[in-house]
Amino acid sequence: MKQIGVGLLGFGTVGAGVVEGLQRNRSLLSARVGAEIVLKRIADVDLERDRGVPVDRAILTRDAHAVIADPDVDVIVELIGGTGIARTLVIEALKARKPVVTANKKLLAEHGDEIFGLAEQAGVDLCFGASVGGGIPIIRVLRDGLIGNSVRSIHGILNGTCNYILTRMENEGLPFDAVLAAAQAAGYAEANPGLDIDGFDTAHKAVILASLAYGFHVPMEAVGIEGIRSLTGMDVQYARELGYRIKLLAVIRREEDEIEVRVHPTLVPLNHMLASVSNVFNAVMVRGDLTGDTLYYGRGAGREPTASTVIGDLADVARNLASKQPRHKRGVPRAAPPPPRIRPLSAVCSRYYLRLMVRDQAGMLGRFTTILGRHGVSILAVTQKAVPEAGGYVPVVVLTHVAREADVEAALAEIHGAGIVGEAPVRLRMIEG
Amino acid sequence: MKQIGVGLLGFGTVGAGVVEGLQRNRSLLSARVGAEIVLKRIADVDLERDRGVPVDRAILTRDAHAVIADPDVDVIVELIGGTGIARTLVIEALKARKPVVTANKKLLAEHGDEIFGLAEQAGVDLCFGASVGGGIPIIRVLRDGLIGNSVRSIHGILNGTCNYILTRMENEGLPFDAVLAAAQAAGYAEANPGLDIDGFDTAHKAVILASLAYGFHVPMEAVGIEGIRSLTGMDVQYARELGYRIKLLAVIRREEDEIEVRVHPTLVPLNHMLASVSNVFNAVMVRGDLTGDTLYYGRGAGREPTASTVIGDLADVARNLASKQPRHKRGVPRAAPPPPRIRPLSAVCSRYYLRLMVRDQAGMLGRFTTILGRHGVSILAVTQKAVPEAGGYVPVVVLTHVAREADVEAALAEIHGAGIVGEAPVRLRMIEG
Repeated sequence: MKQIGVGLLGFGTVGAGVVEGLQRNRSLLSARVGAEIVLKRIADVDLERDRGVPVDRAILTRDAHAVIADPDVDVIVELIGGTGIARTLVIEALKARKPVVTANKKLLAEHGDEIFGLAEQAGVDLCFGASVGGGIPIIRVLRDGLIGNSVRSIHGILNGTCNYILTRMENEGLPFDAVLAAAQAAGYAEANPGLDIDGFDTAHKAVILASLAYGFHVPMEAVGIEGIRSLTGMDVQYARELGYRIKLLAVIRREEDEIEVRVHPTLVPLNHMLASVSNVFNAVMVRGDLTGDTLYYGRGAGREPTASTVIGDLADVARNLASKQPRHKRGVPRAAPPPPRIRPLSAVCSRYYLRLMVRDQAGMLGRFTTILGRHGVSILAVTQKAVPEAGGYVPVVVLTHVAREADVEAALAEIHGAGIVGEAPVRLRMIEG
Repeated sequence: MKQIGVGLLGFGTVGAGVVEGLQRNRSLLSARVGAEIVLKRIADVDLERDRGVPVDRAILTRDAHAVIADPDVDVIVELIGGTGIARTLVIEALKARKPVVTANKKLLAEHGDEIFGLAEQAGVDLCFGASVGGGIPIIRVLRDGLIGNSVRSIHGILNGTCNYILTRMENEGLPFDAVLAAAQAAGYAEANPGLDIDGFDTAHKAVILASLAYGFHVPMEAVGIEGIRSLTGMDVQYARELGYRIKLLAVIRREEDEIEVRVHPTLVPLNHMLASVSNVFNAVMVRGDLTGDTLYYGRGAGREPTASTVIGDLADVARNLASKQPRHKRGVPRAAPPPPRIRPLSAVCSRYYLRLMVRDQAGMLGRFTTILGRHGVSILAVTQKAVPEAGGYVPVVVLTHVAREADVEAALAEIHGAGIVGEAPVRLRMIEG
């Protein structure tokens, strides 16, 4: 049976999971792939730390370049992460015409044009299944399973840290800061949590999903991003009373020749499948023109789930190499003409949840609803909350019909400016039908 | 660009969906696949009926053999269904060394050994994505996405008719017969509904999933099958009060060297993802040794969802043919030695929901709990329902700890025989952790 040699760059948590998975399921993999996937070299800066998995020390090196150059290494697995040395090494591997398997969402989101272009030039596979969704094979599903579909929309819970925080805020009625601190203590959130809670990690993944779905590289600058840092327990609670759960969603939609890519806290009805996704789990709902709604759910991170997807990619590459198969045509997004345009956030249409701290005086309700109406924002429901707040303001929750973001923003600015409310109104988007 | 010619056998609902999908997304498919998928011939007994999709009448024929023999036809799509002429034609196509794409679950479940064997002999692709889960690419996920995993278990809601009936029984408190009649009127259930409601359709799909997961053909005779026909509204209601929803599940589990394949109504906790799957939707939860729990959800039937999956298979075959790639090694289950044994239903271990109509006399509770205990069936909770039933019997619901099926059966037979209950006890299984 043909051997496919693997060079692993980065022997961290996921790297150790890949090594262990390849060892544990070796015979099963060989039978399924029709080729033997053999770990030949591992490069890491730290050769001493115990990763809890037995490795022949002779294959360990600090020299990643030597791993790429090794003639026994047929495919490179990049698990270093980031856009520094990882970018250099991925480029080096592709230029050496070696297929690359990577979990590096930041690299692909920020330098996808360059990296995908190099893979295309080299004519080798660039597999990135583990860059989105951890153990959920969502990249493969979009690439192959739904290949016959024009993708209408994608809604994803793509960051386990945020979903864990939101789940606990709702279930335990805790404020954001308290849950974040608990999540940090439990190891579910980084000491510097900005990449997660400010939505950038989700945005990186949204860029990759959108690029794959629509066949061209979507730049990070095109993504409207709002995180969950300023989300209050009050809004989580009010949303719940209205029959909604707040999730940080990546929203990707195509309408005619425009696509939207955005990341923000979103109200999801309780009976929606995405509302059932709790704690650190991830899920992606894809609406295809043929399939309708489909959903993919699982662990979005972690040593073994992510290793599962890396090994799935390795199996693809091994199969292609063993049979001298060209790379997957669809592995690399390249625009099929004409590429759709990206719709600016201000032009996005959505239903909205608005929460206004309204001055407790007669006529205020009439004033702000009039302003909303003048901006073309039509109201579905208004609820004045019973509890009067300190300082003479009462919370009023408004659900709108579908409205244009720019119109909502203009209306809220006018309401704020008119002294009707005591603080800037809260504006959250609701998931589309 | 290379052309791949398709011969379609069976121009029914799904066939028309495939024709329409290939037309609508032609340019998108060519760009993604790197080859052009061209419909060359269609065979059906009825050439007159309007399928709502434009077709050149010159490609229509009543002669399926001519379609298979046509040198312009590179791949056969079999959408006739059943094990009669469909089996003959699939065999004919494979013997002619033409790859086959089929949605025929019954054929694969009942004649998988023969059909998979022929595909292997011929060395051509046999793709059956649409045989399970309609628009959910679950076959592909098992074949490729989770390739690095040893599959621990699969739990699937695989029959939309049953799920629709169960959803309405619970939501509207209606009895089975009334909902079945409504489902038949709405076109969600066949006039002869036995294949669906007695669990055979789900069992066919379970056989295919189990065969793919474990690499050998699981015979239909090995599957323990119970449908939903005798399920009462009372048990749906009592389960709900205990925090469970009843779903018809295919359960496939591996424990050491044995696998279980069974189909039965199952209590699923309300916070389980499978409990959120309502109406005609399907979902499959796969637990891999690396991924942990992953779930795949979507429309399990219907013209366009099923066509989506057929086209996904066609794209695979087209790509393989265009690049002279051998067939997918894993497309055809063949035992990797040693094949696991199949565990008989009597040896299965599960937690149970028991509902007994107990004679309304002192001492009865003690008598039947004693009998359960003597058979090694340990009780988790007992609830006596407040409403006394006609004839001096009261419903008592028992939840058990994990017990062996044979022990539960023996205990219930003894309880029934001892005159403690007025009718045969109801015994439903609960989903495992």
